Amino acid sequence: MARVVVDVMLKPEILDPQGQAVANALPRLGVDNVSSVRIGRRIEIEFAGAPDLDRAREIADKLLANPVIEDFTINVHEDAAAEVA
Amino acid sequence: MARVVVDVMLKPEILDPQGQAVANALPRLGVDNVSSVRIGRRIEIEFAGAPDLDRAREIADKLLANPVIEDFTINVHEDAAAEVA
Repeated sequence: MARVVVDVMLKPEILDPQGQAVANALPRLGVDNVSSVRIGRRIEIEFAGAPDLDRAREIADKLLANPVIEDFTINVHEDAAAEVA
Repeated sequence: MARVVVDVMLKPEILDPQGQAVANALPRLGVDNVSSVRIGRRIEIEFAGAPDLDRAREIADKLLANPVIEDFTINVHEDAAAEVA
């Protein structure tokens, strides 16, 4: 079982009010060294069998991202437990 | 300028209707080898100066994730252009 991760983020020139709301809340937490926060989506697609990057790209392009305002990146995670919690 | 990426995903035991809706739409695109789709959030935090992982963890815990239903992972991306488009 292989997992393909699609990260969808707003293009840099598109305003991100949700991220700005978080950034504006940080000084109240005592955090003053953050210059920007951007919020997007992470989609984990589990393939039965081998991961199919071309399929994943097609899914991302047609279903997951709006190419007018969003960019996406695709990564294969062979092992699901490679990140620090 | 360093970027810390916080990935927030629903815990595995929590139902993800948004991901299921995408999974259910895939056969209409001719994709039948996907076993599951889960949708979460990806938050990019840009620090002015060195990235502060403890700060990022505090922000994620207090502002970005709901620890009752969500897990988060934190990664440092020194170079923002390391992923495949």
